[in-house]
Amino acid sequence: MEYTEEALRAVISQIAPLNKAVMDQIYRQWDKKAKPLGSLGRLEDMVARLGGIYGSVCPDTGKKAVIVMAADNGVVEEGVAQSDYHVTTTVTCNMTHEDATVAILARMNGADVFPVDIGMYEDVDCPGVIPRKICHGTANMTKGPAMTREQAVRAVCTGIDMVWSLKEQGYGLFATGEMGIGNTTTSSAVASVLLDCPVENVTGRGAGLSSEGLVRKIHAIKKAIQVNAPDPGDILDVIAKVGGLDIAGMMGCCIGAAAARVPVVLDGFISSVAALAAVRLAPACRAYLFPSHCSAEPAGKMVLDALGMEAYIHAGMCLGEGTGAVTAFHLFDTALEAYNKIPEFEQAHIEAYEHLK
Amino acid sequence: MEYTEEALRAVISQIAPLNKAVMDQIYRQWDKKAKPLGSLGRLEDMVARLGGIYGSVCPDTGKKAVIVMAADNGVVEEGVAQSDYHVTTTVTCNMTHEDATVAILARMNGADVFPVDIGMYEDVDCPGVIPRKICHGTANMTKGPAMTREQAVRAVCTGIDMVWSLKEQGYGLFATGEMGIGNTTTSSAVASVLLDCPVENVTGRGAGLSSEGLVRKIHAIKKAIQVNAPDPGDILDVIAKVGGLDIAGMMGCCIGAAAARVPVVLDGFISSVAALAAVRLAPACRAYLFPSHCSAEPAGKMVLDALGMEAYIHAGMCLGEGTGAVTAFHLFDTALEAYNKIPEFEQAHIEAYEHLK
Repeated sequence: MEYTEEALRAVISQIAPLNKAVMDQIYRQWDKKAKPLGSLGRLEDMVARLGGIYGSVCPDTGKKAVIVMAADNGVVEEGVAQSDYHVTTTVTCNMTHEDATVAILARMNGADVFPVDIGMYEDVDCPGVIPRKICHGTANMTKGPAMTREQAVRAVCTGIDMVWSLKEQGYGLFATGEMGIGNTTTSSAVASVLLDCPVENVTGRGAGLSSEGLVRKIHAIKKAIQVNAPDPGDILDVIAKVGGLDIAGMMGCCIGAAAARVPVVLDGFISSVAALAAVRLAPACRAYLFPSHCSAEPAGKMVLDALGMEAYIHAGMCLGEGTGAVTAFHLFDTALEAYNKIPEFEQAHIEAYEHLK
Repeated sequence: MEYTEEALRAVISQIAPLNKAVMDQIYRQWDKKAKPLGSLGRLEDMVARLGGIYGSVCPDTGKKAVIVMAADNGVVEEGVAQSDYHVTTTVTCNMTHEDATVAILARMNGADVFPVDIGMYEDVDCPGVIPRKICHGTANMTKGPAMTREQAVRAVCTGIDMVWSLKEQGYGLFATGEMGIGNTTTSSAVASVLLDCPVENVTGRGAGLSSEGLVRKIHAIKKAIQVNAPDPGDILDVIAKVGGLDIAGMMGCCIGAAAARVPVVLDGFISSVAALAAVRLAPACRAYLFPSHCSAEPAGKMVLDALGMEAYIHAGMCLGEGTGAVTAFHLFDTALEAYNKIPEFEQAHIEAYEHLK
């Protein structure tokens, strides 16, 4: 695809609703299974929705991928984080050889990790990190826009392309992850604008900020919003001015997946902010997105609520990288295993339960 | 052990607190791991607690077992369930050959299923179902005590013995599960007494009861409590009068595990009611118990709250059998894998994060 706003709008217009007929068939299948009706709860809905996405009564996720968008944020010079771009570089490279947590948990859950340099400050020569750099980190958003609108569009389109090319390689279940020092700052800025909520309410300590650091972080976000005056009705304006390249890239994953009829499992706060931005830009993509866990960041639940989603896992995690999403892959395996293996009532020698009115 | 109340009290008196020194060491280990401090949230606590239970800085669960207590309940003749004892028999036997959901999900999670006939109405000749029948189902609790105090004690002791003998076979992580038509009725009765809460608030549709059935169920529970007047301060009295053999057996699993320093993962509503009863009888056993999911039954969360536990998985499940607990085994594997595999900061080439005051 071309990396233009026009091309992006064309992709968005391709997003179709789920196949309701398939979903109904899957619910009827569940009701034949030898167990109390509806007793697998949201795992039953999960399979129905996967079926509605793939258009198959026997949904098969194929290979699983976690796409980790790595980018740096100019706002870090305001003292909003404990670390700097060196850590973005190191951790992103560590993802290629199981020295990063997401890589360890992805292997456990049968998923492959695809770290994407969508805008790291440093140039890396690390085999396995996919080079899609839009620019060397964003600008300091307290002094002007983090990036241009064109750069934001290119980052979104990069995310779309990543999903599409992996789908061609047999991947059918995606997770979004990120790595980028300063990205809870940009996420809180975007959340504040999109939720129309005071900065204080949506800002936390990220990877472990001191109380003084938290004050600086809140101040920086307020200043960025004041200086840039992002238009909440124009999502690309918000992302360009106070967002990040990783957020934009993950937005693209959500939109690209929906257009290609494959599901995306969101990770925590940052991933969910990207999903909220994607849904505001392309409401039809929401049906293709699944939550995973509820982040310990204060706005984690607020953003999921705004998405109308309820997390499956509540473990107080806030590591990022896609770690919560790959952990939740196991629930998808569980739901599909149950759907495929639980015998029907007759086969299990049990009289079928009656349907309640 | 002897199956007497005196022997039971002796086991309870053996329960020791967790090894705090080991737990502190594990938290210090976590803080050396190349990730934001505390960012694996309750998964970090999970490993610390496992270490405190086993007394090892490198906790190893060994083999995993789900003990499924199967029993029938005389109260079913009041029309409180859609099915009858035939289903208890069939599903329990199905657990031995992966025709039951718990067996399917246990295999997925590397766990073995041990169905125990602790009081099924029917006599079964099914290899794999462990014969520990106390009696052929309980009596109808609306007309008198469900069982004698001696029977309740024997059932609790049976649970203790099950855990102890499996521990000798190398099992080190346990889940409690149950099968028994009518056991949400007995669980709601016990919950109502232990939580001192109106029957209506703690009673749900179980495996799919009609609205008329729900009215009958509430009525039966109220009548059972009225007829038997269980003493909330005497847990064995409550379990004997308005509980079930499965509940008593799972209580024993909790107590026996704590005495033998092995952890138990609770399943949903019924399993949690048994845990609450165990904790009321033997408060020290609480430290050895972990929640798994939050049942869709109305009192599921209330009982967990009373235990001071927060579920990890929120999927609206209410299938029973131990299905939620074995699904949560994966989170234990995840936490341990992260603890064992995440490199320390130096090894990952990252400067350590500062500790916040």
